[in-house]
Amino acid sequence: MSPIPGLQTVGLLGGGVIGGGWAARFLLNGVDVRLLDPDPEAPRKVGELLDNARRATRRLTMAPLPPEGKLTFASSAEEAATRVDFVQESAPERIELKRSVLAAAAAAAGPDVVVASSTSGLRPTELQDGMLHPHRLVVGHPFNPVYLLPLVEVVGGAATSGAAIDRAADVYRSIGMQPLVLSAEIDGFVADRLLEALWREALWLVHDGVATVEEIDDAIRFGAGLRWSFMGTFLTYRIAGGEAGMRHFMAQFGPALQWPWTKLVEVPELTDDLLDRLVAQSDAQAAGRSLRELEAERDDCLVAVLQALRSVGAGAGQVVDRYERVLFGRARPDDEELRDGEPLTLLERTIPTEWIDYNGHTNDSRYLELSSRAVDAFMRFIGVNEAYLTGGHSYFTVESHLTFVEQTHAGDRVRVEVVLLSHDEKRFHVFTSTVRCEDDGSDTLIGTAEHLLLHVDTVANRAAPAEAAVLDRLAAVAAAHAGIPRPPAAGRHVGQPR
Amino acid sequence: MSPIPGLQTVGLLGGGVIGGGWAARFLLNGVDVRLLDPDPEAPRKVGELLDNARRATRRLTMAPLPPEGKLTFASSAEEAATRVDFVQESAPERIELKRSVLAAAAAAAGPDVVVASSTSGLRPTELQDGMLHPHRLVVGHPFNPVYLLPLVEVVGGAATSGAAIDRAADVYRSIGMQPLVLSAEIDGFVADRLLEALWREALWLVHDGVATVEEIDDAIRFGAGLRWSFMGTFLTYRIAGGEAGMRHFMAQFGPALQWPWTKLVEVPELTDDLLDRLVAQSDAQAAGRSLRELEAERDDCLVAVLQALRSVGAGAGQVVDRYERVLFGRARPDDEELRDGEPLTLLERTIPTEWIDYNGHTNDSRYLELSSRAVDAFMRFIGVNEAYLTGGHSYFTVESHLTFVEQTHAGDRVRVEVVLLSHDEKRFHVFTSTVRCEDDGSDTLIGTAEHLLLHVDTVANRAAPAEAAVLDRLAAVAAAHAGIPRPPAAGRHVGQPR
Repeated sequence: MSPIPGLQTVGLLGGGVIGGGWAARFLLNGVDVRLLDPDPEAPRKVGELLDNARRATRRLTMAPLPPEGKLTFASSAEEAATRVDFVQESAPERIELKRSVLAAAAAAAGPDVVVASSTSGLRPTELQDGMLHPHRLVVGHPFNPVYLLPLVEVVGGAATSGAAIDRAADVYRSIGMQPLVLSAEIDGFVADRLLEALWREALWLVHDGVATVEEIDDAIRFGAGLRWSFMGTFLTYRIAGGEAGMRHFMAQFGPALQWPWTKLVEVPELTDDLLDRLVAQSDAQAAGRSLRELEAERDDCLVAVLQALRSVGAGAGQVVDRYERVLFGRARPDDEELRDGEPLTLLERTIPTEWIDYNGHTNDSRYLELSSRAVDAFMRFIGVNEAYLTGGHSYFTVESHLTFVEQTHAGDRVRVEVVLLSHDEKRFHVFTSTVRCEDDGSDTLIGTAEHLLLHVDTVANRAAPAEAAVLDRLAAVAAAHAGIPRPPAAGRHVGQPR
Repeated sequence: MSPIPGLQTVGLLGGGVIGGGWAARFLLNGVDVRLLDPDPEAPRKVGELLDNARRATRRLTMAPLPPEGKLTFASSAEEAATRVDFVQESAPERIELKRSVLAAAAAAAGPDVVVASSTSGLRPTELQDGMLHPHRLVVGHPFNPVYLLPLVEVVGGAATSGAAIDRAADVYRSIGMQPLVLSAEIDGFVADRLLEALWREALWLVHDGVATVEEIDDAIRFGAGLRWSFMGTFLTYRIAGGEAGMRHFMAQFGPALQWPWTKLVEVPELTDDLLDRLVAQSDAQAAGRSLRELEAERDDCLVAVLQALRSVGAGAGQVVDRYERVLFGRARPDDEELRDGEPLTLLERTIPTEWIDYNGHTNDSRYLELSSRAVDAFMRFIGVNEAYLTGGHSYFTVESHLTFVEQTHAGDRVRVEVVLLSHDEKRFHVFTSTVRCEDDGSDTLIGTAEHLLLHVDTVANRAAPAEAAVLDRLAAVAAAHAGIPRPPAAGRHVGQPR
C-alpha cells in the first residue's frame, strides 16, 4: 500500500541510467513500479542502480522511509502503462522512438493519467503529436542521479492542460523533488541550454588543445562550481557588483560580452530595455535581502559545502584539509604554555549555523564535538601527533559524561578549557569546561564534559602502554594541574542530586 | 612576523571586491598587506570584507589561525610595491590602466618579486608589454569570494619565467588556495570561458523571454550545480555514459551537438582524433576508478553537500528538509508498537563516510548524535511533535553519560533501542543502546547512552510540567518498560570500576 495518496503504481518506459533512477526514486518512496526495457540486462542494471540509491538515500536522511514498492518488468509499453497512476518515459533521444512508445502507453493508460517524458530537450508539442488524449503529455526532465538531484523541469506543449502540469508537479514533489515549471517551450528548455553552452565551450577547449578534460573539470569544481551548488550566476554576479548591485555589474562587465572570451560571439545587445528587465528580475530574486545579507548567506553555504566535501575527502574539501594540516603545523601546539594551577585552553570556535537544531539552539551532540576536538588538541599537546598515529598507537574514548548548562546560538564565540584529572600508563582522565566569551569580556560556563581515554595499539587493536615521551608530557601536565580544585561535575552520574 | 617563510608583506593594487578579498586572505594568514585604492571609501569597504572573511574563516576551520597581518594603505603603486615579497594587481578590466599600474609596481619592486594580475581574461603577454623585468609577470586569476574559493588560474605570457610561475603557485598554496597552472594563454583562460558561455546563454534566455533570472538560477542550483561543486562536466558525463563510459556517452549525445540546444551552433566536429583524445584524457582523469566507484564517490559527495545545505537552510537543502517532514508525517510514529518488556526501536541508520575521524572509525560525538536522534524520535512518540514545539514547550537535555563499546565504520548499519528508566511531571530519564546489525542477522552492542531531560516552557525559558497527553504517553511507556532489567551501564560515572 503506497503511502502517497493516488500514487500506487507507476509505469516506466526505459530502464537506463535515467529510467533506472526514476525506478529507484519511486520504489524507495513506497510506489510500485512496472518497467519496460528491451535490454535483457535491464533487471541486473536496475538492481545495481537501486542498490546505489538505497545506500545514498539511507545516508541522506534519518527520517523513516516507507516499505519499498514492488518492481515488476513489463514486456510492452501497453503492459507497462495499463492500470497505473502515472507514466514516465525515458527512452533514447530519438523522436520517432519516443513518439511510438508514448503513443502506445497513451492508448493503454486511462485518459487522465499523466504521461511524462524525460527528454533532455525535445519539445513536448512535437512529442504529443499523434497521441491519444494529448492534453496529459508533459515533459518532466530530471538530472542524473535521479534518486538524489531534486530538479525536474516541467514543460507543457501546445495541447497540454494546466491540470496535467499540476499533477506532474505534485507527483514529483511527493517523491522529494523540486519541479521547475517553465512557461515557454524551446529546444533544450532552460537547464540543458546552460549545460550545453558550457559543454560546447569545453569541447572547443579540448579541440583547440588549450586544456585537458581534467583541467577543465578542475576549473569548475575548485571555483564557480562550489557556488553553483546553492546560487546561480545571476545572484552571484549581483553580489559581485558590490554595493551598486546588478546595474553596476552589467556596466562593469557588460563590455566583456563583446570580447572573444567564448566561441559564442553573437551576444544579446544590452539595450536599456534588457538592462531594466535584468535589474528588475534580479531585485525580485533578491527579495529585499541586502548585499551584506546575501554575502553572509553565500559564505555560510560555501563554508558548509567546503566542510561537507572535506568530510568525504573530495575536491575542494581536500584543499581545506591540506590547509588545516599546514595551519596545525605552523601553530606548533607544543609551544602552548603550561601554567601551574591553570587549565589548558586548546580550542576556540564560533558556533556555526548548521549546529542549530529544531529547538533553535546548539544540538547536544555538538557539545560533545567541541569537547572531543579539545581532547584531540590535548592529545597533540602531549605528543600524540600524526607520526604517533601512523606508528600504530592512539587513545580511544571509553566513557564520557556531559552536563548541559546554558544554551548557545549561531555566532556565539566559545572556548574549551582542559584539566587533566588523572593518568596512568594506559589511561588518562580529563575534564573539559566550555565557556562562552561574552561581548563584555566575561565568560559564561555553557557545559562540561569528562572523559576516560584508553591508549591502544591500533594494529593489534588492544590496550597498550603509551610511549615514554607521551607519559612524560602527561606527568608534566599532571604536576601543573595538581593544584586545580576538582570540578563539582566530575564523577557525577546522570540524575544524581546536585 | 609572518608564519609563511619568505612572505612577510604583499603589495596589493586595487581594493574592490577582488582586491579586498585578496587582502583578507593574506591578512588572515598572518601576512602584512600594503594596499593601493583611489576610492576614499576603500578603508571602510575593505574593513567590511575583512569582517566577512574573518567570520567565514573561523566557521570553516577549528585549526589555529596565526595572528592577523597588518593592513596599511599606500598612496601610489610605487609605494604599495616597494620592499614587498609579492604583488597582486586587481584593477578594473581596462588594459591601459592595468599596464600602467603594473609597470609602476614593477619599477618599484625588486627584479625577482613576482607581480601577478587578477585579470579575468586579458592575456599576460599583453600585460607584460613595456614592463621592467617582464619575466616575473603572471596572471593569478581568483574567484569571488577570494577568501573562501580555492581556485586560482595561473598563466604565464611569452616572457614569463618558469620560476615566476612556480613562485606564484607556491604563494597561493601557502594561503590555502588551489593553483591551476595553464599551459596555453587564450582570452578568458579556461574557467571564464566556461562561465562566460553559460552566462551568455543565460542572457539570451532572459532576452528571449524564455525564463526569468530566478528560474535560470534555480535550473542550476537544484540540479547540475550540486554536482559541479565536486565534479566537472567531463567526469559527470563519463558516469552518465553508464558501463560503456565516455565513448558511449559521446555516441549517444554527440548528435545533440548538432541540434539548436544553444545559441552557440558552431561546434567542433567529433572527428576520430578528437574522440580518441577525449576518451584518453577521460581515462587518465578516472585514474582506474571503476564506474561503480565513481558513482559511489559522486553519491557520497551529493549526500554530503545536500546535508550541508540543509543544515544552513539553503537551496536544495530546503527541498530535503521539506521532504523529511513529509516522511516523518507519513511514518506516523504513534503507530510504532509498544510491547511489554521490550525496548522501543526508533532509529535505524547507515554510518556515513563523513562520520569517520582520523582514527579511521566513527567519531565519539556521532555516538551521541545517534542517541540524541533516537531521543528526538522518542519525543515524537510521546507526542512532542511540531505543534507541541510551536506551542512553546519542549524537552532539553540536562545531562548525559556515554559508553563506547565497539568501533564502527562507514557503511555499518546500526539501530538504536530506547528504554524509559523513570519520569515525573517535569523530567524523563532514558537509556539508549546502539547496536550494529551484522550480516549474519546478529546484533553487536556498540555503545550506550543515558540522558536526563527537563521539560521547559521555551517562551519563559524555565522548567514547567509537561502536558497531560504527553504524561499519559510516558506512563504507558513506563508500564511497558517496567519489566526490563536495569541496564548495567545505567547510573555509572566516568572511571567507575566495571
